[in-house]
Amino acid sequence: MRYKVTLEYDGTRFEGWQSQPSGKGVQDIVERALAAFNPETPRTIVAGRTDAGVHALGQVIHVDIAREIAPIKLCDAINAHLRKYPIIALAAEVVDEHFSARISAKKRHYRYVVLNRRMPPALLVNRVWHVPHRLNLAAMQEGAALLVGPHDFTSFRSSVCQAKNPVRTLQAFTVTQHDVQIWFECAARAFLHHQVRNMVGTLIEIGRGKRKAADIPSIITARDRSAAGLTAPPGGLYFVSVDY
Amino acid sequence: MRYKVTLEYDGTRFEGWQSQPSGKGVQDIVERALAAFNPETPRTIVAGRTDAGVHALGQVIHVDIAREIAPIKLCDAINAHLRKYPIIALAAEVVDEHFSARISAKKRHYRYVVLNRRMPPALLVNRVWHVPHRLNLAAMQEGAALLVGPHDFTSFRSSVCQAKNPVRTLQAFTVTQHDVQIWFECAARAFLHHQVRNMVGTLIEIGRGKRKAADIPSIITARDRSAAGLTAPPGGLYFVSVDY
Repeated sequence: MRYKVTLEYDGTRFEGWQSQPSGKGVQDIVERALAAFNPETPRTIVAGRTDAGVHALGQVIHVDIAREIAPIKLCDAINAHLRKYPIIALAAEVVDEHFSARISAKKRHYRYVVLNRRMPPALLVNRVWHVPHRLNLAAMQEGAALLVGPHDFTSFRSSVCQAKNPVRTLQAFTVTQHDVQIWFECAARAFLHHQVRNMVGTLIEIGRGKRKAADIPSIITARDRSAAGLTAPPGGLYFVSVDY
Repeated sequence: MRYKVTLEYDGTRFEGWQSQPSGKGVQDIVERALAAFNPETPRTIVAGRTDAGVHALGQVIHVDIAREIAPIKLCDAINAHLRKYPIIALAAEVVDEHFSARISAKKRHYRYVVLNRRMPPALLVNRVWHVPHRLNLAAMQEGAALLVGPHDFTSFRSSVCQAKNPVRTLQAFTVTQHDVQIWFECAARAFLHHQVRNMVGTLIEIGRGKRKAADIPSIITARDRSAAGLTAPPGGLYFVSVDY
């Protein structure tokens, strides 16, 4: 039986989603929880391989389990074994054998949260990027809009990104103010490695007046990582949800 | 010079605001930070003495400091000494000698956050009360409205509450849904010990159908702690702000 499972996690103390020799990938912990009530250790396939420190509100995996188990019982069993960790199975459902959490994904949604005030956070440590500078919201919105569409995002991908094709279609990218927070929300079928964090880092430079929104097209056409801005830190990034 | 200072803190690992023999009160940490750049150890006066585990988004204190210092420098100096702790001085201002963070307060605002979904939190551990049961929002709103006004809140105060007069005037009490969170927001010039947590605990019992909103008047007139509901846990409570 193939199960689709939705997960929430605090990525702060993990070395990212992917299984690590240290055993400190979120995947390692989740697979150990699955193994605890299933004879064979099942491997999971994930929708979005989050980096170290990145959080998930609605990460999706699929896993094949020999035993038939009611989806809600599967969640409860996983959660019972995850009690020591800030990882929760929110929901599960039986899916057909052709479903893949990775390949079947039609749209992935990310949110990046900036705390924009002079003082650092006490309650949101490791959950936001603290940017104390005055930011021009309209300029960041203009820059975000110029990133929407099909583009070669070479300038916005990590130097270690292994994707053969650097073209991605950014379907939406909004920038909104929520009291002292600024939310950067974007959606695409797929993203390149560090793409969201590099886009946000560049938009913050635009917000600070170090670059202009109108520079975005030339940054894209440069196809050069050094043409874009810094990589925003991981703690502000949330993998929100996946559309199938 | 008298300074008014606004603080944000994560109350999880502290034994409440008040100074403790253990040195683990928020007050102990803040006063040590103040003492680090001020010759005498100044005592602080606080607007709301939060309990262990209760958070603050805008706690207010006043403190007398012999040295004259620009308010923003005072914040930076406090924060430099608080770096190890989840406590931040958000703002400061010079106030006249008659100002008291406690006595001058005209209205105190609290928020209580319930996470209302089947699964416990991964990201909001110690920041919300997880209530997995189905809740009747309209009934809780009706119950909250019946608590507004001047009442003898004996049924809603802790047995160790030392206030001579149990009458308080609750000026507002709203219950609103925010996705899977329910926010209970109330304001009054002053509250009794555990009053907000006991009111929220009672409203949750109403939301679960264990009590009726219409029972609120008789709970109030009982003037008996055992007539009201359980005490909501501290992690969901936020001291939001004070009006002067």
